[in-house]
Amino acid sequence: MSWRDNLIKIEPYVAGEQPNKTDFIKLNANENPYPPSPMVAKAVRDFGADALKKYPSANAVPLVNAIAKREGLKPENVFAGNGTDDVLSLAFRAFFNSDKPIIFPDITYSFNTVWCDILRIPYETIPVDGDFNIDPADYARPNGGVVIANPNAPTSIGRGLDFIRKILDSNCESVVIVDEAYVDFGGVTAVPLLQEYDNLLITRTFSKSRSLAGMRLGWAMGSPELISALYATKDSMNSYPVDSIAQAAGVAAIEDEEYFQATLKRVIATRERLTKELRGMGFTLPDSQTNFVFATHPKYSAKAIFEYLKTRDIYVRWFNKPRIDNFLRITVGTDEDTDALIAALKNLIG
Amino acid sequence: MSWRDNLIKIEPYVAGEQPNKTDFIKLNANENPYPPSPMVAKAVRDFGADALKKYPSANAVPLVNAIAKREGLKPENVFAGNGTDDVLSLAFRAFFNSDKPIIFPDITYSFNTVWCDILRIPYETIPVDGDFNIDPADYARPNGGVVIANPNAPTSIGRGLDFIRKILDSNCESVVIVDEAYVDFGGVTAVPLLQEYDNLLITRTFSKSRSLAGMRLGWAMGSPELISALYATKDSMNSYPVDSIAQAAGVAAIEDEEYFQATLKRVIATRERLTKELRGMGFTLPDSQTNFVFATHPKYSAKAIFEYLKTRDIYVRWFNKPRIDNFLRITVGTDEDTDALIAALKNLIG
Repeated sequence: MSWRDNLIKIEPYVAGEQPNKTDFIKLNANENPYPPSPMVAKAVRDFGADALKKYPSANAVPLVNAIAKREGLKPENVFAGNGTDDVLSLAFRAFFNSDKPIIFPDITYSFNTVWCDILRIPYETIPVDGDFNIDPADYARPNGGVVIANPNAPTSIGRGLDFIRKILDSNCESVVIVDEAYVDFGGVTAVPLLQEYDNLLITRTFSKSRSLAGMRLGWAMGSPELISALYATKDSMNSYPVDSIAQAAGVAAIEDEEYFQATLKRVIATRERLTKELRGMGFTLPDSQTNFVFATHPKYSAKAIFEYLKTRDIYVRWFNKPRIDNFLRITVGTDEDTDALIAALKNLIG
Repeated sequence: MSWRDNLIKIEPYVAGEQPNKTDFIKLNANENPYPPSPMVAKAVRDFGADALKKYPSANAVPLVNAIAKREGLKPENVFAGNGTDDVLSLAFRAFFNSDKPIIFPDITYSFNTVWCDILRIPYETIPVDGDFNIDPADYARPNGGVVIANPNAPTSIGRGLDFIRKILDSNCESVVIVDEAYVDFGGVTAVPLLQEYDNLLITRTFSKSRSLAGMRLGWAMGSPELISALYATKDSMNSYPVDSIAQAAGVAAIEDEEYFQATLKRVIATRERLTKELRGMGFTLPDSQTNFVFATHPKYSAKAIFEYLKTRDIYVRWFNKPRIDNFLRITVGTDEDTDALIAALKNLIG
């Protein structure tokens, strides 16, 4: 018997590659190509480091208040954490304690299965159709919980309120998590449904639309019962997950609505141009409601394009997984990044 | 059947109170009374917020390198996380997968039992003796892992290398975690034993001796096998727990050894004065090797003193728990804080 026998055996989530060099175009982690609001820079610059000697607000009260105000909710409807991944992993632990499997699409955020494995939550995946669409009727079956990303990733497809409502109406005995990481780029939020459904939890991130991937901030919105269970779970793992500077930066990002909207417009405009260019080169891709596109080419394999782009110092995301291994997930970069990407692809494809 | 039936039922850890006011003396969370190094303030001020648009180094490489260098280890011996609580909760999940109970003292960091509950790890606590001493012979029994805080909290008692070695020698089939959160204030580190024991994991925090409670930084040191298991567990929960600014601040704190040592000296000098004053008033307390003292008075109940001090806007920690409910854990503050504390106690006790 050895201590080695008791080490965890697990297949971790693999995030987008971070090459060990500086001069490359990174379109593989759905980061925002534009910097955070100047108000964030000011909040960081003006933060008095002496205050770091004290623990932060354990429940990130200033940040929760700012989010609640912006979303038209009460503070007891909001929970803030160390990135959406922190929030989602806590939510899985807090809500999914049934013997029945939780259900989610086979093609969606690939961290779902990893959390289920490490948290020992049974799960079943439900195939999306050939166009990557989710049929809400498939979610009317006994389950221990439902997780839907809307818009979905990596497909980039967003659905309307009627879609979420159908899933909620057939799942009044389960908690339904709607991950809205990408909703700001053209999706439809389920926030209005919070007034009707106590079992709905919506998650958001600062990493995409608010350009704060490096700051690790995410939040959840739901009924006070769900939010309380999240706090109890957080307080059983790490009492203070969100540091004081991150809280201040998050407040600044939330309050600068004008900058936020302007950045969204720029990303969306570039996405539309990229979509048109890719289709012009023969790529097939759904209309994206996110800050990335999900594209396949009839003549060139996704893997070959992925490898080729790397030789040009352009990193996109290729998933070596069933059903999607001939697709590329390409983050919408700056207009310059996009020009370079298009030029490289034209060079390959003609 | 309701979704409510599947919500987590758990008794979370309760951290030191954070009163909703500003003008009070906070001696209840073992925070450092002195600010972090001026190099930390500079690192925060000079941090270019534009870089926040990208994800941080997933494994906190710059910080890990700085820690490894300072501790005379290799980077593969070091793991950094979002505070020691994050590191310890990951370590419990990564290492304690035996059917046998893990063991730790009955009086120690009270988060241990909470992590065991949420992670479904069986555990047994082993009573410390009447003077709060841990007998290493008690730890020579079958177990699924061992957790020792050295110096221990809330007792403030530190032990030498021989003590840790005895525990390691009788536990070659288990991972032994030594939590050194307070070691810098006069304890003896087990780092030299890392060369001999592959099953030893040592944890540290930036929250106490480096005045960065608000920044959420902690680390672990161990064999590459243990560190790899920590990374796999981290990557199964939250890929990027340590934000970019925290990494930069952590590097600055680690590199300013001179400031670190000077701050330690100040805290230790005040602790010695506080100890003497408390004993002069009739308190009994062990010699502390931490930044707090653990004191009891023969005539006044700890609870009464705790409540009285609150009326004087001085917050100390009282644990309503068996064996220690007549003790106060009092953080060593500034000399001014300490003067105010002593004056208040003299007013009560005479």
